[in-house]
Amino acid sequence: MELYSGRINTLVDELAALPGIGSKSAQRLAFHIIGMPKDRVNRLAQTLMDARENVCYCEKCFTLTDEALCPVCANVKRDTSTIMVVENSRDLAAYEKTGKYEGVYHVLHGAISPMLGIGPGDIKLKELITRLDGTVKEIIIATNSSLEGETTAMYIRKLVGDLPVRVTRIASGVPVGGDLEYIDEVTLLRALEGRTEL
Amino acid sequence: MELYSGRINTLVDELAALPGIGSKSAQRLAFHIIGMPKDRVNRLAQTLMDARENVCYCEKCFTLTDEALCPVCANVKRDTSTIMVVENSRDLAAYEKTGKYEGVYHVLHGAISPMLGIGPGDIKLKELITRLDGTVKEIIIATNSSLEGETTAMYIRKLVGDLPVRVTRIASGVPVGGDLEYIDEVTLLRALEGRTEL
Repeated sequence: MELYSGRINTLVDELAALPGIGSKSAQRLAFHIIGMPKDRVNRLAQTLMDARENVCYCEKCFTLTDEALCPVCANVKRDTSTIMVVENSRDLAAYEKTGKYEGVYHVLHGAISPMLGIGPGDIKLKELITRLDGTVKEIIIATNSSLEGETTAMYIRKLVGDLPVRVTRIASGVPVGGDLEYIDEVTLLRALEGRTEL
Repeated sequence: MELYSGRINTLVDELAALPGIGSKSAQRLAFHIIGMPKDRVNRLAQTLMDARENVCYCEKCFTLTDEALCPVCANVKRDTSTIMVVENSRDLAAYEKTGKYEGVYHVLHGAISPMLGIGPGDIKLKELITRLDGTVKEIIIATNSSLEGETTAMYIRKLVGDLPVRVTRIASGVPVGGDLEYIDEVTLLRALEGRTEL
């Protein structure tokens, strides 16, 4: 059914193909865009192309950035002896938001997943090992608490082997403010296993 | 806090300025776009600019379209003696999806709202009256069932005055499949007032 004329349909379809945007949101967005000042729309379009064109991997940590070094790696105040390993740039941003982590990162761009056919060679693992030049004292593995994240964590532990580097894993447990009643059993068991002295 | 580098921040900010897209979705979208093939991103950007540049009002019904006449007005099989008045192009699309309405439309592009300072002159009301050339037999007012929609409906009723045109209003009541228990009192009263013989 052709609800709108050609260009509007095309716009709705293109928007609806983006993740998390359903057909209703796509329509709402399309009409919002059509109603926006022309220069705002051109700027938005330019921003899309510009970001796609110029974003690359940070030379050190492999997060997505538009310069040779990302803001974290470019910051001389960061402690380069501690590397937090995350699955993607959004996870890096999540930890940056806490404002408390002073080390640097390493972005894997994925996690090992036999189900999806993603092997160790498909993510930035050998690039992580290359960074262990003797100045690195600790690797904090902050992959997701999923099957893939855990597999990747175990794999990194094995990969580091006998190198004189501490390998740690962020804690898994009950989220702060979480109500026990609504938390899944696996998480409850993890919280129990990971209990600490008071 | 600069979580990402320049171009990524700009993209996230531009996306987050769109309606219904929060900061989290904007980040997810931005990274999805950065990961898309370059030609797909350029096509999306082009579609945005193209739609904004070429979309105009249908000469007859004022819906947004990219041709002189919208698909409905261009369709000679539609019954031009019945005009359904809607607030915007999305409402038109909602009725088109039913596939049962055979008349044409008139898009007001808003509703009278003293609160927002939108008066009768700010929406396509005089354009509606201009269309009443003697061939139109019925105006079905399908503005929203809100204060603004009702005000606009009453205003149109007054505006049409003694012209030999039937002016009707779509029914207001309990939505099909709706559970009485969860429906607001105003709707329940409307449904009672609008009751019909069985």
